[in-house]
Amino acid sequence: MKKPSIPKGTRDFSPVEVTRRNYIMDTIKGAFHNFGFQPIETPSFENSETLMGKYGEEGDRLIFKILNSGDYLRKVDDATYTEKDSGKLTPKISEKALRYDLTVPFARYVVQHQNDITFPFKRYQIQPVWRADRPQKGRFREFYQCDADVVGSTSLWQEVEFVQLYDTVFNKLKLDGVTIKMNNRKILSGIAEMIGAEDKLIDFTVALDKLDKIGEEKVKAEMLEKGISQDAIEKLKPLFSVSGNASEKLATLKTLLSVSTIGMEGISEMECIVNAIETLKLSAATLEIDVTLARGLNYYTGAIFEVAAPKNVAMGSIGGGGRYDDLTGIFGMKDMSGVGISFGLDRIYLVLEELDLFPKTVTANTRVLFINFGEKEALYAMQAISALRKEGIPAELYPDSTKMGKQMGYADKRDIPFVVLAGESEMSDGNYTLKNMKSGEQLKLDRAQLLSKLK
Amino acid sequence: MKKPSIPKGTRDFSPVEVTRRNYIMDTIKGAFHNFGFQPIETPSFENSETLMGKYGEEGDRLIFKILNSGDYLRKVDDATYTEKDSGKLTPKISEKALRYDLTVPFARYVVQHQNDITFPFKRYQIQPVWRADRPQKGRFREFYQCDADVVGSTSLWQEVEFVQLYDTVFNKLKLDGVTIKMNNRKILSGIAEMIGAEDKLIDFTVALDKLDKIGEEKVKAEMLEKGISQDAIEKLKPLFSVSGNASEKLATLKTLLSVSTIGMEGISEMECIVNAIETLKLSAATLEIDVTLARGLNYYTGAIFEVAAPKNVAMGSIGGGGRYDDLTGIFGMKDMSGVGISFGLDRIYLVLEELDLFPKTVTANTRVLFINFGEKEALYAMQAISALRKEGIPAELYPDSTKMGKQMGYADKRDIPFVVLAGESEMSDGNYTLKNMKSGEQLKLDRAQLLSKLK
Repeated sequence: MKKPSIPKGTRDFSPVEVTRRNYIMDTIKGAFHNFGFQPIETPSFENSETLMGKYGEEGDRLIFKILNSGDYLRKVDDATYTEKDSGKLTPKISEKALRYDLTVPFARYVVQHQNDITFPFKRYQIQPVWRADRPQKGRFREFYQCDADVVGSTSLWQEVEFVQLYDTVFNKLKLDGVTIKMNNRKILSGIAEMIGAEDKLIDFTVALDKLDKIGEEKVKAEMLEKGISQDAIEKLKPLFSVSGNASEKLATLKTLLSVSTIGMEGISEMECIVNAIETLKLSAATLEIDVTLARGLNYYTGAIFEVAAPKNVAMGSIGGGGRYDDLTGIFGMKDMSGVGISFGLDRIYLVLEELDLFPKTVTANTRVLFINFGEKEALYAMQAISALRKEGIPAELYPDSTKMGKQMGYADKRDIPFVVLAGESEMSDGNYTLKNMKSGEQLKLDRAQLLSKLK
Repeated sequence: MKKPSIPKGTRDFSPVEVTRRNYIMDTIKGAFHNFGFQPIETPSFENSETLMGKYGEEGDRLIFKILNSGDYLRKVDDATYTEKDSGKLTPKISEKALRYDLTVPFARYVVQHQNDITFPFKRYQIQPVWRADRPQKGRFREFYQCDADVVGSTSLWQEVEFVQLYDTVFNKLKLDGVTIKMNNRKILSGIAEMIGAEDKLIDFTVALDKLDKIGEEKVKAEMLEKGISQDAIEKLKPLFSVSGNASEKLATLKTLLSVSTIGMEGISEMECIVNAIETLKLSAATLEIDVTLARGLNYYTGAIFEVAAPKNVAMGSIGGGGRYDDLTGIFGMKDMSGVGISFGLDRIYLVLEELDLFPKTVTANTRVLFINFGEKEALYAMQAISALRKEGIPAELYPDSTKMGKQMGYADKRDIPFVVLAGESEMSDGNYTLKNMKSGEQLKLDRAQLLSKLK
């Protein structure tokens, strides 16, 4: 019989991994809660019509479809069936599909439950999503998303809060040196105005982003090659030397985009956010204006965020988000502006691992193992174990009264820090011998002493 | 555009529901951890071959299958395709399936990772499962299972621990009056021996279970009708009057099954467990011997558990489990005895709701809303909000500086207990006006006082 396996792109999580993942998720949840966000959960699968057509053609292909139950072919007409065309057959034999992200189900939730929701609605959601992507290093077919969004208000205070929220989470995780990059779709629109065409905007920002690596001349050459006019490049030349702190960058941008109404609007929004953050201060992160940030360009309508891991770790973005003016329009509910961010759980995990930032206390481990010397001794042990557990100290009895060596080996392999030996002599004295597995130190203690020692 | 909906048998969970469900799950998790169990997680979908054939024919039908990605029909040979037979087509167009329970994936996990696991392995797992069952009241197509199992040891101390674990969880949930019913497969085998045939055993226990409701005569009539001999019924007559506490029931059973080796073995196992529990004591639950308990008869080989909700609530079992001698045999790994229990999350939820046992503190709610009086005032408010959040007090700012009535209405609808008003006059005094939304009481406080008041 061949050893069983799991589908590619999926993962089993061992006790250590689950515990560490929960540590990150609980930290994020705690911050969400602290900022007034409320949790919701949606089903793992949605009606196909809810998901299809929402993520573009490529997205449609990457959605996992669920086969209808029972004799699903009975309802398929012969004409369609004989074509043997996967694309045409799918909607006839599959009505449900696995969640692809948390945003569309959230939009669906808001529309469906609009009469029960108090707006502005601050919700968070931490659940797995599934994508039929080609699996590769760091890209999985099942992974968690951690999203927080506010819908029903256009106030910029929310952008301010999201910057603080990122800072709070990374501060709690002791992850210093994170950069929160911020841009604004309206500034990008201003730049597009200046270079003459929105469709050149991505080429422009992609080229500009390489400035540090390849230098001004090569960037200009790339822009020319992409069909951006010499004239536009001249006009936008100050963008090549935007530098300094946020206030200085804003000053440069103001001069540059002074003729663009939309551009100036974007600058003023950014200024609001930057000023508020300057007063309120950040602890672990730095807020940085980055006009080359064009993440999700077609989706976002105001602020755009992306979080970069500390510079000493080679890792892409560990979070991102932004403002979108029409979350629920796809389901027929108009004028529902929203803004949201998400945390990249898998990458944050890798960063914390690389920097050795998981606290030693983050362990699913038992604190003390009681050696099993036989029926009567085990019962004696169990009484102490019950008392320890009542005090919140994870304790266990080795289930079988086998050789000492085997039992000690179990404690050792499982990294259990303390072992209790309680044989006949301890029983008659009402004592327990506590052994520190690391130092080897042994202490004879009564039950109360044992409790206070292990607390 | 029609209002979007979710597939039948699935559920959206609102903030209150998520918070209450998490309260139950966190309580269970805490107890699992306290008892030395370690968490694992497995993928939502498994290779179909891992799941198919493990739950019987009916189970196979209820497993949700995932359609292969891309042009999945290309690989289907024409001969199979033209048959248009759902059963034959499925394995050709679907290679993955959604998890049906947590037991088979656990067995797969143990076999796959056997070299990394230290046995005995105490694991818990809390994840959703999916079944294509006909949805009905209280039965869903997506629901969570909460399982704890130990594999790799035959020690009865584990059964003792599981009884304690149930008691610990229900005690923490303040759910008194729970009954942990216990039986043993070996006792049932002894009874089967006495009535002459294992295949009559279920009829026998089903009839016996009705004793309270329909009386001895009708029970006997039903047994006769089912083909159980008059002679067998006579022999087992003492079972009709098994009563008293556990020790008394054990005494009756000992007399009754004295000729059955296997039956006596079951009684001795039960006795061990009962004696240990009598010494160790339970807090919220009662352990009860119930020889009519035949749950999962074909699966369990030793102890069988089922937990009944308090008698004043009309609810079926809220948990169950037992000992199985061969968990991993289906994947080719022999001699891996295990014992496990599970908690019925959805039913426990309903019980706690009906008995009004959710603590008032179990809420995802914000503790204090700051009214937004405009740009400068909001920044002043945000400084206090940041300080409150640092102390772990969930606080939020109303995002827009709209009419007071609307902002107060938001606090009201969301049941936020406190509101802070900080306008120009408060700002110039360095104060905040705290309003208790229930009593209407207003206090003028400085920031330190505000913090200590809201703590």
